[in-house]
Amino acid sequence: MKLTWLYRNFKSDLDLIEKELEEAVSSNSELVENASFKLLKAGGKRIRPVFVLLSAKFGDYRIETVKNVAMALELIHMASLVHDDVIDDANMRRGLPTINYIWDERVAMYTGDYILARSLEYMTDIPNPLLHKKLSKAIVEVCIGEIEQIKDKYWFDQPLRNYLRRIKRKTALLIAVSCELGAIAGNTEESIYRRLYRFGYFIGMSYQITDDILDFTSSEEELGKPAGDDLRQGNVTLPALYAMRDPQVKAKIEKVTHKTDKEEMSRIIKLIKDTGAIEQSHQLSRRYLDKALDILEELPESKAKRPLKEIANYIGRRRY
Amino acid sequence: MKLTWLYRNFKSDLDLIEKELEEAVSSNSELVENASFKLLKAGGKRIRPVFVLLSAKFGDYRIETVKNVAMALELIHMASLVHDDVIDDANMRRGLPTINYIWDERVAMYTGDYILARSLEYMTDIPNPLLHKKLSKAIVEVCIGEIEQIKDKYWFDQPLRNYLRRIKRKTALLIAVSCELGAIAGNTEESIYRRLYRFGYFIGMSYQITDDILDFTSSEEELGKPAGDDLRQGNVTLPALYAMRDPQVKAKIEKVTHKTDKEEMSRIIKLIKDTGAIEQSHQLSRRYLDKALDILEELPESKAKRPLKEIANYIGRRRY
Repeated sequence: MKLTWLYRNFKSDLDLIEKELEEAVSSNSELVENASFKLLKAGGKRIRPVFVLLSAKFGDYRIETVKNVAMALELIHMASLVHDDVIDDANMRRGLPTINYIWDERVAMYTGDYILARSLEYMTDIPNPLLHKKLSKAIVEVCIGEIEQIKDKYWFDQPLRNYLRRIKRKTALLIAVSCELGAIAGNTEESIYRRLYRFGYFIGMSYQITDDILDFTSSEEELGKPAGDDLRQGNVTLPALYAMRDPQVKAKIEKVTHKTDKEEMSRIIKLIKDTGAIEQSHQLSRRYLDKALDILEELPESKAKRPLKEIANYIGRRRY
Repeated sequence: MKLTWLYRNFKSDLDLIEKELEEAVSSNSELVENASFKLLKAGGKRIRPVFVLLSAKFGDYRIETVKNVAMALELIHMASLVHDDVIDDANMRRGLPTINYIWDERVAMYTGDYILARSLEYMTDIPNPLLHKKLSKAIVEVCIGEIEQIKDKYWFDQPLRNYLRRIKRKTALLIAVSCELGAIAGNTEESIYRRLYRFGYFIGMSYQITDDILDFTSSEEELGKPAGDDLRQGNVTLPALYAMRDPQVKAKIEKVTHKTDKEEMSRIIKLIKDTGAIEQSHQLSRRYLDKALDILEELPESKAKRPLKEIANYIGRRRY
């Protein structure tokens, strides 16, 4: 991973955001604080704050303004993770037990609500109605996406466009908005923040497809959960959709439930790999990435271009 | 109920809000729309919008501005009801099956998220940062309140102030904020919107205490659920807290669980009533109400005073 340049040049600002995140999730309720802290300490790549900061560099970068946008977006993302873990009945996240596992679903529901509410506080500190509007519309879309995801579970006949719309709402949208709002916070021209939105969207699509591939190709050790777990949970992703173009493979995949055991999952993963679905998925991810890189070329010169390109290439090459 | 004057004079504005609420919960996701609609059609008194409209009358009442505040507050309230029903594992709300009962907890969680997100969209349409700040702080408090409520379940030794803080966050705060933000939207002076906040706070405290009394004194037919259900769900309210000052009664109440049957609950309700706890609770509710009425007297003359007084008195006399 070649993001050292990035983290060196933004270290103090990223450290500041990390510190503020800690303060944000503290509360005068011990239970809320413990639950939120657990999540915060589990880490994460803080990819949304990074995109906010870098995008703001295309304009008038002021950390005081940009910071609140970065905070709001990371907190929204954290809140959605907590609610996702309830939906997926997940026990582990980033190698640590989830809030719904340690406490229960109800604590997780309200911890997510609390973190989301805190994100609004950061947002309202920014005196720019355009930012508020765009962010609240994005939250609506993310919520619709999550509820659609519940509906789509174990829907083996879903069209490809259904999958693409789902990962847009699940991942690409918030990354796109991170880039867009970072640029708006930096007071860039409309043509620039629109392009950064599209850059973020393509990066996000590529990123999520890679994530969905890794669920089949990584080891249990790397994932922190068994391989093929998405499919077992009914989350029908790109490799499975491609593989099901073979009717015989489809007949096997359609039988998967959350009770399917490890041995059977290993056989199914092998079947999927044998169809070439993994390679096809990599190709689609790569196409999105190339679109993102094309947009980057069109953007005016800025210190942020190099690190954005590095991140894009890191995402494209990521193997765990 | 003598609220006819109120509803006659505000009918067109309240109808407008009702129509907008319908539009607000519609979405391009059928599942979200069905779930939200169910809740909307179950009705409710729209008490928060009513307080917003009336409070705005102390200033420069413009329905276009005030409407968005009323919408945001009612949607926040609706979202919190959906999440509450998950917490309480409730099957019925206002005589209709809950979202978590018809679909499941996960759909309910995200429907609540969706409705909350929609409320933000309304909020961001108001170009007043003070409103945004106050509202987002209120949402944080409401969320902390809900999570504390989970912690407080079956805590029979909780002090009275713990109960009072809980109902403040659960009910009084959003009513206080409805009054405050309505007045701010009407551009009143600070002294007026501060007083209206306190008016709403006292009304809300009185209202919730009455609600908690009714859970013991109403019939199953009136409540749409068995009497004493709050206590069975571990929600230790004012009548129970007063009654437990008698150690023998306390010993009986402490044994209540969600498995306690109807006959045993009837015996316990009778015990509570025999201690005089219901009357004591009415007295405290009355004290809050009197404080609200005192504040009303201090407020400048306005068309809104009479209906606010009517609502206050209705809340004070409410017996189901």
